[in-house]
Amino acid sequence: MEDALARLKKGTLKLYALEKEFPPEEAIRVRRTFVEEESGTDLAALGSFSIGIDRVVRRNIENMIGAVQVPVGVAGPVQVNGEYAKGEYYLPLATTEGALVASANRGASAITKAGGADVRVVRDGMTRAPVFAARDIVHAKEIADWATAHVADLAAAAETTTSRGKLLSITPYITGTSVFLRCAYDTKDAMGMNMATIATAKIADLVEAETGARLIALSGNMCTDKKPAAINLIEGRGKTVVAGVRFSDDQITKFFKTDAATLVEVNYRKNLIGSARAGALGFNAHAANLVAAMYLACGQDAAHVVEGSSAITTVEATGDGGVYVSVTLPAVQVGTVGGGTGIDTQAACLRLLGVAGGGEPEGANAKAFAELVGVGVLAGELSLLGALAAHHLARAHQELGRG
Amino acid sequence: MEDALARLKKGTLKLYALEKEFPPEEAIRVRRTFVEEESGTDLAALGSFSIGIDRVVRRNIENMIGAVQVPVGVAGPVQVNGEYAKGEYYLPLATTEGALVASANRGASAITKAGGADVRVVRDGMTRAPVFAARDIVHAKEIADWATAHVADLAAAAETTTSRGKLLSITPYITGTSVFLRCAYDTKDAMGMNMATIATAKIADLVEAETGARLIALSGNMCTDKKPAAINLIEGRGKTVVAGVRFSDDQITKFFKTDAATLVEVNYRKNLIGSARAGALGFNAHAANLVAAMYLACGQDAAHVVEGSSAITTVEATGDGGVYVSVTLPAVQVGTVGGGTGIDTQAACLRLLGVAGGGEPEGANAKAFAELVGVGVLAGELSLLGALAAHHLARAHQELGRG
Amino acid sequence: MEDALARLKKGTLKLYALEKEFPPEEAIRVRRTFVEEESGTDLAALGSFSIGIDRVVRRNIENMIGAVQVPVGVAGPVQVNGEYAKGEYYLPLATTEGALVASANRGASAITKAGGADVRVVRDGMTRAPVFAARDIVHAKEIADWATAHVADLAAAAETTTSRGKLLSITPYITGTSVFLRCAYDTKDAMGMNMATIATAKIADLVEAETGARLIALSGNMCTDKKPAAINLIEGRGKTVVAGVRFSDDQITKFFKTDAATLVEVNYRKNLIGSARAGALGFNAHAANLVAAMYLACGQDAAHVVEGSSAITTVEATGDGGVYVSVTLPAVQVGTVGGGTGIDTQAACLRLLGVAGGGEPEGANAKAFAELVGVGVLAGELSLLGALAAHHLARAHQELGRG
Amino acid sequence: MEDALARLKKGTLKLYALEKEFPPEEAIRVRRTFVEEESGTDLAALGSFSIGIDRVVRRNIENMIGAVQVPVGVAGPVQVNGEYAKGEYYLPLATTEGALVASANRGASAITKAGGADVRVVRDGMTRAPVFAARDIVHAKEIADWATAHVADLAAAAETTTSRGKLLSITPYITGTSVFLRCAYDTKDAMGMNMATIATAKIADLVEAETGARLIALSGNMCTDKKPAAINLIEGRGKTVVAGVRFSDDQITKFFKTDAATLVEVNYRKNLIGSARAGALGFNAHAANLVAAMYLACGQDAAHVVEGSSAITTVEATGDGGVYVSVTLPAVQVGTVGGGTGIDTQAACLRLLGVAGGGEPEGANAKAFAELVGVGVLAGELSLLGALAAHHLARAHQELGRG
Repeated sequence: MEDALARLKKGTLKLYALEKEFPPEEAIRVRRTFVEEESGTDLAALGSFSIGIDRVVRRNIENMIGAVQVPVGVAGPVQVNGEYAKGEYYLPLATTEGALVASANRGASAITKAGGADVRVVRDGMTRAPVFAARDIVHAKEIADWATAHVADLAAAAETTTSRGKLLSITPYITGTSVFLRCAYDTKDAMGMNMATIATAKIADLVEAETGARLIALSGNMCTDKKPAAINLIEGRGKTVVAGVRFSDDQITKFFKTDAATLVEVNYRKNLIGSARAGALGFNAHAANLVAAMYLACGQDAAHVVEGSSAITTVEATGDGGVYVSVTLPAVQVGTVGGGTGIDTQAACLRLLGVAGGGEPEGANAKAFAELVGVGVLAGELSLLGALAAHHLARAHQELGRG
Repeated sequence: MEDALARLKKGTLKLYALEKEFPPEEAIRVRRTFVEEESGTDLAALGSFSIGIDRVVRRNIENMIGAVQVPVGVAGPVQVNGEYAKGEYYLPLATTEGALVASANRGASAITKAGGADVRVVRDGMTRAPVFAARDIVHAKEIADWATAHVADLAAAAETTTSRGKLLSITPYITGTSVFLRCAYDTKDAMGMNMATIATAKIADLVEAETGARLIALSGNMCTDKKPAAINLIEGRGKTVVAGVRFSDDQITKFFKTDAATLVEVNYRKNLIGSARAGALGFNAHAANLVAAMYLACGQDAAHVVEGSSAITTVEATGDGGVYVSVTLPAVQVGTVGGGTGIDTQAACLRLLGVAGGGEPEGANAKAFAELVGVGVLAGELSLLGALAAHHLARAHQELGRG
Repeated sequence: MEDALARLKKGTLKLYALEKEFPPEEAIRVRRTFVEEESGTDLAALGSFSIGIDRVVRRNIENMIGAVQVPVGVAGPVQVNGEYAKGEYYLPLATTEGALVASANRGASAITKAGGADVRVVRDGMTRAPVFAARDIVHAKEIADWATAHVADLAAAAETTTSRGKLLSITPYITGTSVFLRCAYDTKDAMGMNMATIATAKIADLVEAETGARLIALSGNMCTDKKPAAINLIEGRGKTVVAGVRFSDDQITKFFKTDAATLVEVNYRKNLIGSARAGALGFNAHAANLVAAMYLACGQDAAHVVEGSSAITTVEATGDGGVYVSVTLPAVQVGTVGGGTGIDTQAACLRLLGVAGGGEPEGANAKAFAELVGVGVLAGELSLLGALAAHHLARAHQELGRG
Repeated sequence: MEDALARLKKGTLKLYALEKEFPPEEAIRVRRTFVEEESGTDLAALGSFSIGIDRVVRRNIENMIGAVQVPVGVAGPVQVNGEYAKGEYYLPLATTEGALVASANRGASAITKAGGADVRVVRDGMTRAPVFAARDIVHAKEIADWATAHVADLAAAAETTTSRGKLLSITPYITGTSVFLRCAYDTKDAMGMNMATIATAKIADLVEAETGARLIALSGNMCTDKKPAAINLIEGRGKTVVAGVRFSDDQITKFFKTDAATLVEVNYRKNLIGSARAGALGFNAHAANLVAAMYLACGQDAAHVVEGSSAITTVEATGDGGVYVSVTLPAVQVGTVGGGTGIDTQAACLRLLGVAGGGEPEGANAKAFAELVGVGVLAGELSLLGALAAHHLARAHQELGRG
C-alpha cells in the first residue's frame, strides 16, 4: 500500500486505476487511505461495509472508497390489492428523516384495516428522445415524416440490441430545426434506461443515414429523465401507477382523529390550490419522501425521485359518507434487475417484497414493485394529510426530530 | 427473543414498541427476525451494519430492521473558488448507478485543470407557507394585510422557538378564500425545515388569534417542499447557488474531445429547446444525479433531490474563443447539522469536505456545502454534455453498465 | 321605442328578449338607448356600425348594443413558401397598439427580401376532453381500457353528428377516480370547437352507457381550451405550425442594424434563459401580439390568443455565416368558416388572404391561414428581436406611443 | 389617387409613407385601394368606419386600411361590491363567439340576485425586467448586489422619465451569467408598459455604467409580458384581482338548475384535477373569454388576454349550505388612459363603466376597471360551470352556434 500511496501522491498512479493493480477490497482501502491523508480526515466509518463488492465495482460505482449506511425501517403490514402485488407486505424504507417510517406505518395500518388499497399500473413505457438538427423547418418535417413512416424498420433496428425490450412507439416533436423522436419501450423487469439508450442509438443511426438529420444528443430532454417536466406528468415515463382506498366516517375518526370534510379540505387547499398557485408539477403532500425511501432501500436510481414527486393526490367525499383517497404517480421508473438491485442489502429489501429478479411473466416483478411504490405513497399521503388535518405537524416534528 | 416473537405474532406486542422493552440493537434484531419469519425471507444482509444506532433510532428512523449500504466513490480533486469553500476537494458520491462517479470525476478534472470553478450562494432562506381559510375574499385580504402590517410581531413570536433561526420575510398569496403566508428563515447550518415548521406554527397561532383566519395546514404547498414547483425555480428555497467555469478552445479539445460550437449546440438543443418543449422546470442534463449522490453521501434529505433537479445549465461561447459553462441551482436545501448528518458514515463524508457540524460564523458550513454541491453539479453537466457532444453516450453506457 | 323602454324599466320586458319583438337593428337601438339611460352615458359611437347584423345577432352575439371598431393595418407584402399558402401576402392586423404593424411590416419586408419564409403545418387536430368520475381506481382503469378497445365504435357515434369532422384519436388519462378522454378531430376548415364538442357528447353518452362512468363535464380541461397548458405546448391543439427563414450576415446588417451573434444572444438570454427562469410556457418575444392582431382582423376567437402565445422562437447561427430564425406555434386554433369569419369586415380580411370560406380540398383554407399566422409571428419576432438587439425598444416606444 | 397608386406600384412611394403626403382619411383610402388592386379583393367593408382617426393613426396603428367591427353586447346589470367599483354595472363585451354574452349575462344575473360580488385588488405593479450579461457568475452576483444596494438611486433615475409612475421594487434574478432585474412600478391609471419600459431604460443605463453589465434586452422575459409564465401566476403583474360570491342552496337550484355538490365536483374535477394533469398555468373554465371580450370592448391590449387566462377558480361548499365561488386573476394589465382607450367606440365602453380617463385619486379608474374584469370573469365562470353541471354544454352550443 505504501508504494501505491507514494505513486498516487506523485501522480504516476491514478486514483481510478487502482482496481487494475489490486483486488477490489484492497483498491478501495488504498484509495480511502490516500483520500484520508490528502484531506486529513478519518474515513474509517466508510470502510466498514459488508456488501460483496466484486460486482459493485464493475457495475455500480467507480473510485470507491467505502459505503454509507442508511437505516431501514418497515411500514406494515399493508394490504395490497394490485394486479401484480397481492396480499400483505412490509415495506422497507431507507431514510434518515425521523418520523417518516412512523408516518408511513400509520397510513399502512389504516389501509389494511380498511380492507387494503387498490392499485393498478395504467401505462408502461420507458422513453428516450434523441434530438436531431435539421437544415431548416422543411427538412425537419421530412425527418419527422420519415420516422413516422418507418416505425417498423426503426423497431427492427432497435430490437437488434436487446433480447427483451420492445419498441412501443415513436412520437416526433418538431421545434424549429430541432427534431425530437420520443421512443417508448417495454423494458420488462429492468428500469430500462440503459436498454432504451442503446436501442435508440440504433434508431438514431438509421435516421441520420436515411434523412440527413444530424444527431445532436441521444437524450434531447424530451425523454424526460431526472428533470421535472410536464411531458412526464401528462404522458408518463416508466410506469404510471394509480392507487386508492376508501374509508368510512368511523374509520376516519378512528384512524386519523379527524373527519371527512377536514381531510377533503386539507387536500383541496394544500395539494390542489397551493400547488396550483405555486406553479407546481406535483399536487401531493410528500410523495417524494416515500418514493425516495423505497427507491433507496430497493436499489433504484435515487435521482428518479424527481419524477416520483409529480404525484397527484385526491381526497373525495363519497356519496354515502367517508372518503376515497387516491394517488396517481405518472412516472415510476423502477426495475427489479440491473442497477443497484443486485447489491446484497438492496436485494434483501426486494426479496422482502417478493419481487427480486426477473418476474413471471417477464415484467411482472417490476410492475408489482411499481404497485407497491404506489401503495407506499398512498400510505404516506394519508398519514401526513391526517396529521395536518389535526394541526399536529409541528408537534410531531418536535417530538420526533424530523427535519 | 422467542417470547417477543410470540407476542408480536399474537398482536399483543406492537412492532414499533420493541424499543420500549429492548435495547436498540436487540429491538432491531427481534424486529428483523419477526419480519423474516412473516415474509419467509432472509434479511441477514440488512443486519450487518456498523453505524452507532442509539441516536439513529431516536432521531432518524422508526421500526428499524437494519441498514442498506450504498457504495461511495470520490470525484476529484476539484478546485473550488467559492466564498465559503476554497481549495481542492474530493467529492463523496453515494450511488449505485455505474459511470456516474467516473463522469463526475472527468468533469472535476477538467474544472481543476481550467483553474477551478467559481461558485456563489446568491440567496438563502428556508421557507414554510401555511395555508389559512378565510370567510370570503374580503376577509382573505384582511388577513394578508394584517400579516404584512405585523411582520415584526410575527418575527418575535417565531423566534421564541429557536435560538438561531431568523425570520427573513413573509410573503402573502391570496387565492380565493385561501391565504398562504410564505415565511422565509435564515436557518444557519441546519437545513432548517424542522426549525421553520416549528417557528411558523407560532406565526400561525398569532394569525389565527388576531384575524379569525382558520389554519388548514402548516404546509400549504407554496413552501414548496419536495414537489417540483416554479415558485422554487423562480424565488429559490434554501440556498440558490450559481457556479461557473471557463474553458479555452484548446482545453475543450483536450478535456472533452469536442469543440466550443458543438458543446454550445448540445446544451442549446437539449437543455434549452428540449426542456422548453417538454414543459420542464429543469434545464439541465442530469443535475439530479449529482445532487442525489452528494446528498446521500452526506446525510441530506434524499427527497430534496426534487428541488435540486431544477437546475439551469448554460454553455456560452466567449468572445475570445472557448466557452463559459454555468449551472444555477435555485433550491439547494442542505445542512451540516441535524437530519442524517450525524450518522457515522455520513458524518465522515461531511468531514471529508471539511463542513461537518456548525460553521464559523454560523451558517458558513452549510453555505460551503451548498457551494460544493453546485460545483459537483457543474462537473456532472460538463462531463455528460461532453460525452453527448461526442455521440458517446450509448457506448459509455454499454461499457460501464449504467442504467 | 318608448313603450319598450318603459317595459324594460319596469322589468316586464327583458333586455335579451328585444329581438323577439323588434327587427335586429331596432332591437339593438332600443337596448342601447336603455343602457344609455340607465348608465347616464352617451353610447352613440357604438351605434355607428355598418356590418350586416342579421347573421351576427343569431350566431355571434347576444344583447347587442353596437360594435367597437378596431383599426386594421397591413404588413407586407411578405413572401410565404408554405404548403398551402404560397406567394406574396398583405397580412391584415387589427390592433390598437402603436408600433405593432410597423414592426411586423419591417419583419415582413426582411423575410421577403431574404426569399420568403418556409412554413409547414406539422400536426392538426382539434381536441375535446370530457372528464368522467369512476367509482374507484379499478373502475377508472376499466373505463379507460374500454374506450381504448372501442375507438371505432366511438368514432362512428361521434361522426353521426358531423358531415365533415373525423375522429383522429382518443387518448385516455386517469387521475385517481377522474378519467379524461382526449378526443382529437380533423375539423377541416372550421376551427372546430363546436363540432368537437357536439361529437364528443355522443362519445360521452356511449361511455356512460357502457361503462357506468359518470360524465362530470364535457370539457375536463385536458382539452385544453383557453388556458395556458403544457399539454398543448407539447402535443398541440388545432394546428401545430413551424415557420423559418434564413438571413446572411449582410442581410442582418442591412435589415436589422445588428449582427448574427447579437441576434442569437438576444434570443438566447431573453427568449430561452429568461422564459426558463420565469417558469414560462412560451419562449418568444411577442408572438401573442401578432396572433391577436391577425385573429381579431380575421374573425377568429380572440381568447385563443392564449394558446397562440406558447410559441418557441429560435435564432441559430448557421455554419456558413448568417442565422436561421424559426417560430414553432404548437396550438393555432383557426378556421375560415364559422365563428366570426362571416362578419363583413372580418370576411374582407380573410378574402385579402385568399382563404375565405371552405378550401379545396376541405381544410386547405384553414391550413393556409394557419401558415400565414406562423409567418406573421415570425415577422413580429424578427422585428422585435432586431430592435432589442439595437437597444432601441424604449426609443421606439417613445416615438410611436406603444403601450 | 391615381398618381399615388402608380408610384406605389413602381415602388417609388412606400405604403407606410402615405400619411406624409395625404391627410389620414385619404392616405387610408389610397392604401386600401392599392391593397385591393394588388390582391384582387374588395375591401370596402373595412373602409366603412366612423372612428375619428387623427389620433388613431398617430398612436394606435400604422399602415391603416380601415377597421374591423366587433359586435358588442352587454351583460348585466351586475352588482359589484368592490373597493373602487361599487353599484350596478352593465359590462360591455365585444365578441364574435355566440353564447358568450348570454352566458355572462346569466352569471351576472345570479350574482346580482345573490347580493353582488365582492372584489378586491390585492397587488398592483407593472413590471419590466431587463436582462444583462455578466462576464462570469462572480460578476453576475456583483451586478445584482449593486442593484440591490442602489434601489433609491435607480428609482430616482427611473422617475425622471415619468411624472406619475413610481418605482415600487427591483428584484434581481441570476441565471448563470444572465442577470435579470424585475422592476415593478405603480403606473396609476395607465396600463403602464410604455411607462415602465422607458423608466427601466434609465435604470439599465445606470446599471451598465456602474457595474460593467452589458444590457442585452430591455425586456428579458422575466417581466413576463404576453407569454404564459408562472412568475405572473405567482407574483402577479399589473393588478392581482380576487372576486367572490356566495349562493345558498336555494339560489343554486334556482339560478343554475343544479346543486352545491355538483357545482363543487365540476370545478374540482375539471378546473383543478384536469388543469393539474394538463400541466396548466390556468385553473378555470373560460376566464380568457371574458377577459378578451372586456379588453376588446374597452380598448385594452388584446394580447394581454394571455395573462388574464391564468385565473384560478374555486367553488367551495360552505358550512351552512350553499357555495362560495371565487376567481383569482393574478395579472390583470389594464388602463383607462393611453393605448386604445381613446378610440371613440372603446371610450364609450369605458364611459359605460364610469371609468374613462384618469381617476380620482390617480389610479382609481384603472383599479375599478380591474375589479370589473374580475367580476366579469366570475360571472362567466359561474355560468359555464353551471351549464356543465347540467350537462348542457353541447346543447347550448348547438342552439347558439358557439364555436
